[in-house]
Amino acid sequence: MKLRELAARLGCELCGDGEGEIVGVAPIEQAGPGDVTFLANPRYATHLATTRAGAVILAPGQEAPVPCLVSDNPYLAFARAVTLLRPPPRPAPGVHPSAQVDPSAVLGVDVHVGALAVIGAGVRVGARSALHPHVVLYEGVVVGEDCVIHSGVQVREGCRLGSRVVVQNGAVIGGDGFGFARDREGRYHKFPQVGIVVVEDDVEIGALTAVDRAALGVTRIGRGTKLDNLVQVGHSVTIGEDTVIAGQVGIAGSTRIGNRVTLAGQVGVAGHLTIEDGVIATAQTGIPGLVEKGSVVSGSPAIENRAWLKSTAVFARLPELQKRLRELERRVESLLGRPPSA
Amino acid sequence: MKLRELAARLGCELCGDGEGEIVGVAPIEQAGPGDVTFLANPRYATHLATTRAGAVILAPGQEAPVPCLVSDNPYLAFARAVTLLRPPPRPAPGVHPSAQVDPSAVLGVDVHVGALAVIGAGVRVGARSALHPHVVLYEGVVVGEDCVIHSGVQVREGCRLGSRVVVQNGAVIGGDGFGFARDREGRYHKFPQVGIVVVEDDVEIGALTAVDRAALGVTRIGRGTKLDNLVQVGHSVTIGEDTVIAGQVGIAGSTRIGNRVTLAGQVGVAGHLTIEDGVIATAQTGIPGLVEKGSVVSGSPAIENRAWLKSTAVFARLPELQKRLRELERRVESLLGRPPSA
Amino acid sequence: MKLRELAARLGCELCGDGEGEIVGVAPIEQAGPGDVTFLANPRYATHLATTRAGAVILAPGQEAPVPCLVSDNPYLAFARAVTLLRPPPRPAPGVHPSAQVDPSAVLGVDVHVGALAVIGAGVRVGARSALHPHVVLYEGVVVGEDCVIHSGVQVREGCRLGSRVVVQNGAVIGGDGFGFARDREGRYHKFPQVGIVVVEDDVEIGALTAVDRAALGVTRIGRGTKLDNLVQVGHSVTIGEDTVIAGQVGIAGSTRIGNRVTLAGQVGVAGHLTIEDGVIATAQTGIPGLVEKGSVVSGSPAIENRAWLKSTAVFARLPELQKRLRELERRVESLLGRPPSA
Repeated sequence: MKLRELAARLGCELCGDGEGEIVGVAPIEQAGPGDVTFLANPRYATHLATTRAGAVILAPGQEAPVPCLVSDNPYLAFARAVTLLRPPPRPAPGVHPSAQVDPSAVLGVDVHVGALAVIGAGVRVGARSALHPHVVLYEGVVVGEDCVIHSGVQVREGCRLGSRVVVQNGAVIGGDGFGFARDREGRYHKFPQVGIVVVEDDVEIGALTAVDRAALGVTRIGRGTKLDNLVQVGHSVTIGEDTVIAGQVGIAGSTRIGNRVTLAGQVGVAGHLTIEDGVIATAQTGIPGLVEKGSVVSGSPAIENRAWLKSTAVFARLPELQKRLRELERRVESLLGRPPSA
Repeated sequence: MKLRELAARLGCELCGDGEGEIVGVAPIEQAGPGDVTFLANPRYATHLATTRAGAVILAPGQEAPVPCLVSDNPYLAFARAVTLLRPPPRPAPGVHPSAQVDPSAVLGVDVHVGALAVIGAGVRVGARSALHPHVVLYEGVVVGEDCVIHSGVQVREGCRLGSRVVVQNGAVIGGDGFGFARDREGRYHKFPQVGIVVVEDDVEIGALTAVDRAALGVTRIGRGTKLDNLVQVGHSVTIGEDTVIAGQVGIAGSTRIGNRVTLAGQVGVAGHLTIEDGVIATAQTGIPGLVEKGSVVSGSPAIENRAWLKSTAVFARLPELQKRLRELERRVESLLGRPPSA
Repeated sequence: MKLRELAARLGCELCGDGEGEIVGVAPIEQAGPGDVTFLANPRYATHLATTRAGAVILAPGQEAPVPCLVSDNPYLAFARAVTLLRPPPRPAPGVHPSAQVDPSAVLGVDVHVGALAVIGAGVRVGARSALHPHVVLYEGVVVGEDCVIHSGVQVREGCRLGSRVVVQNGAVIGGDGFGFARDREGRYHKFPQVGIVVVEDDVEIGALTAVDRAALGVTRIGRGTKLDNLVQVGHSVTIGEDTVIAGQVGIAGSTRIGNRVTLAGQVGVAGHLTIEDGVIATAQTGIPGLVEKGSVVSGSPAIENRAWLKSTAVFARLPELQKRLRELERRVESLLGRPPSA
């Protein structure tokens, strides 16, 4: 595709020669003359002067020695360029003869069911959805349109996925929540987990992530929310829309997470609490209680991020502070001629 | 079922009209006239006045505007009600024609083997156990009676599960432990992991949890213990009875965990140490050494919980403390007319 | 095997009678007369006096009441003894009739493909590699020679594994990285992940570990590196050679980890940064920035390990320090006859 055409399709302003042929995409330090690249993270700005790319997508006000596509959101524009130039492989419609599809299952038009997949009784799969090999859908599962479910994913009985949902390999949707009632002798008895999971439209769920079914009712992942790998979502949790949950985050049961929340890697959230809209928790934060709208929190237990940054700076100097305190005590004692009162 | 009959079967005292027909179960704020619900967590007590439930299971001394079932352990009584009213689906006995069962495997009466499951040589499965689709049992695995093994579970060679064991989807039992010997050049050589895993009766293992086989000997999960999702149990670990391990906990190799221990979410336990009976570790605790019987510990590295709570409260005020220390130094200096000795 | 022969094959000096028959391996406290055992961890030295083993592998200068094999590296020598005496089961060459192998796939000599495995178009598998049941290789995957890929492993399109690579059950190699571009309305759009994963020779990858494919280019795991279970490796990460990553570690995207690095359990590493050669991070460390060659770091955020140890010791005494500070303020105030300036 000519650079001029790419600019038009991305809605970017073109600076420089638009006649170059763009055939690929690459990171800025590896891009060659046929590649378009981008600059969004200032860490990589030093590569701008020396890039050999055919074109760079960048923000207004930046300059490069090669043709540029100017965008208010270079990362988004580049994501669209990648989608145009390297469209993801799409498995052909049809059911592999080795797949086990229950006769009562209803598959929409142009659905792909890969080798050795298992589709249970009463399952419904919407048009154009792709179920890769070794996907297992228990009975009564509903999958919307244009979904991509990768190999090794397990979806348990009665769970419902919206449209354009992407599930990476090995994720488990609808496993039993962790509910046990303790008796007088200290033994645990299973609380049957009879709820389901509802995954709304445009959600992505990472590899080896577990979203537990509700004890009663629904565990819900809201529209447009993205979960990374190895995330744990406990039973009866509700997550809002356009929220981002990074790798290895754990969310205990019955907690409510709002819209446009960001939980960075390895964050832990206790059960039965609320994280309001727009909250950001930095990596490894441990959240024991309510976090109010728009807060940025850090630490375990979580406190406001700027306070945490200051406290951690002092933490590293605690031995010195302790020494200074001892010295002061000694000096005051010498002034007063006696030890401090116990 | 009439409420009166439900009360009798649960062994609860009935307060109010026992003639209502109970057909379902629901959380207190969603329950309707045909539902029984419960109140165990005081957080939800405010819903008691307005519930529309057909009946509420609650502790002695509590009151509700609807018929009540009184129990010393409302959560346990409700768990039993759910089991009565919403019995979990039980797959029909029989072996799916697409399953690959080695001729030398021995299956007990009324065992269910789902589609595309793989049962290796010499495997024994006890009566009434259900192996869902895509379960893989390597050679020599032993599974007791009345077990439920969900789809995507892998059990490696020679591992043994007791009776009434439940394994959620995607868990791996008996993967190689992480054992490598380093040579003079700094290269690692695999230490073959030739032990097994023994899972005792009434254990539940969560989705995507990994329990490693012992290097030599046995990794053991004791009777009645419950492991949540995404837990890591290292090689040669021993876990006692009636212990609860929450999501994303990691236990390094050769550690011994006692009976009735509770490890909350994301706790990490170092290797070659002992956690004695009855210990509680709060979420994200990092345990570097012995924890004595009955202790409650928190923090990383773990200290006694109450001390940790106090220290974390001071931690949040460290910048202020540092400022006060500086001010004191200034004032003492002005009193003494000279700076403190270095 | 006679002990004398075992000594010769391990290159160990023999002390005592070499005529005993050694048929097994066992931990020091469980070993019997036919077993060889070892002593490497001083924690277990107390068992030396009472061991009933047929022989003990130990370091020079140690003594035991039974025949000994002396080695500079007892753990490595014992690992070799285990390999000799308990060789791991090797599945027989051949393709199970239930496996789904694309006609365009190329399998080397003596490859084993287990039941219900799925081998995609254009896949190449090197000589003697074993693919256990339920392995899924997407199209274009390359696997080297003498690899062992356990059941339930998923390898995504185009990813490449070297020779002698071991992958434990349920691991996912090449799932999409977590890349989304946010638009003006706060919605996230998928950045297609068009790179691959390259796993070099002699790597081991633990159960249920996820290694994401690069957004562009390559996510690389270097030669001889070992990853434990439930590890998350983000897109475009590069890990060097002979590095050890313990269970539940998370490494965010585009980070570079050097050679001979050790990350202990549950460590978290932020994105776009460098961990230089030889770094050690203790368990639960959170790394927000560059870590220089050979450093030992701890804490979240990470600081130098010895400083962290000292600070954590003071942390546990913070309430006492706060009290002493208050007392000093009171005393200084009484000296000065007025409160400190605000």
